[in-house]
Amino acid sequence: MRYCSKCGHSVNMSIPIGDNRARAVCPNCEHIEYDNPRIITGTIPLYEGQVLLCRRNIEPRFGFWTLPAGFMENQESTSEGALRETLEESGSIAVCKQAFSMFSIPHINQVHLFYIAELERDDFHATEESSEVALFDLEDIPWDELAFSSVSKTLKLFIKDHKNGHYGFHDDVISANQLSSS
Amino acid sequence: MRYCSKCGHSVNMSIPIGDNRARAVCPNCEHIEYDNPRIITGTIPLYEGQVLLCRRNIEPRFGFWTLPAGFMENQESTSEGALRETLEESGSIAVCKQAFSMFSIPHINQVHLFYIAELERDDFHATEESSEVALFDLEDIPWDELAFSSVSKTLKLFIKDHKNGHYGFHDDVISANQLSSS
Repeated sequence: MRYCSKCGHSVNMSIPIGDNRARAVCPNCEHIEYDNPRIITGTIPLYEGQVLLCRRNIEPRFGFWTLPAGFMENQESTSEGALRETLEESGSIAVCKQAFSMFSIPHINQVHLFYIAELERDDFHATEESSEVALFDLEDIPWDELAFSSVSKTLKLFIKDHKNGHYGFHDDVISANQLSSS
Repeated sequence: MRYCSKCGHSVNMSIPIGDNRARAVCPNCEHIEYDNPRIITGTIPLYEGQVLLCRRNIEPRFGFWTLPAGFMENQESTSEGALRETLEESGSIAVCKQAFSMFSIPHINQVHLFYIAELERDDFHATEESSEVALFDLEDIPWDELAFSSVSKTLKLFIKDHKNGHYGFHDDVISANQLSSS
């Protein structure tokens, strides 16, 4: 951040009065630019006991499999964003059943949130963002080809809860020293 | 958003290639400025069956009671942010027990998240942000003087779950036509 979004003047990093951390502050118009974590929202899309995965057609992790998810947008709820991303990435229409997992990832300033969702029908297809979209049996998840650690952790928790017959809500932190798909 | 944060040039609202909604795009350096929802993270701080509330010493809702909460910052987890805000607003040190409620509020582009937390000891005080900090019995919550609908909804759900002897995770949406403290 080098210029003020309100007036175009160059900004300084300084601690505003009443605050306790450095922000981009404009010496011209006094506007303060806040930079906060972003939410990635997505689904575990289920159809007759199988889970839908998307093979990424974009970076990062091009070619790896993922649950459909993406940046939450303004003017939507977390579950609306999850279903929008599911449609955009897999061409499928789903319904959210419950919030299932939430991972804070402090070193990239993100929070990843996944909903258990059910596909309305066996209808999905490759998209601009996904070179391939497919249903997997839970015992056939391609663990070594998953794109992100939040995805693999979510799927592991889902399988564990599925075996126990009860789906909880799981809140955890992913730190910088964990591998991208571990 | 009127100027590019990277180069200071005035920006245009347009739909970038591969995107499906208008963003602030710089015609000079091609930087795209994304604006996404922010997370408010806080606690339901408990001490021997009572809940700690803070009387707001700042706008909005100056003078009304609230659960301690505030904007999640970069480089922290949701629970770390919740405990930081609890300390900043009430002077108390708490421990998060579980994520309890999450409210999407699309018309203000926020997601409010509350953790059940326990105070380590009966030690809190007024702060710059809170003119008064006090413990309340659950039957003495000042319902008509609560600052935000996410706070009143969280407290109502907490009392309901407390009576049932089991605390769940609650995910809901607060729309524009709901009163600020209802």
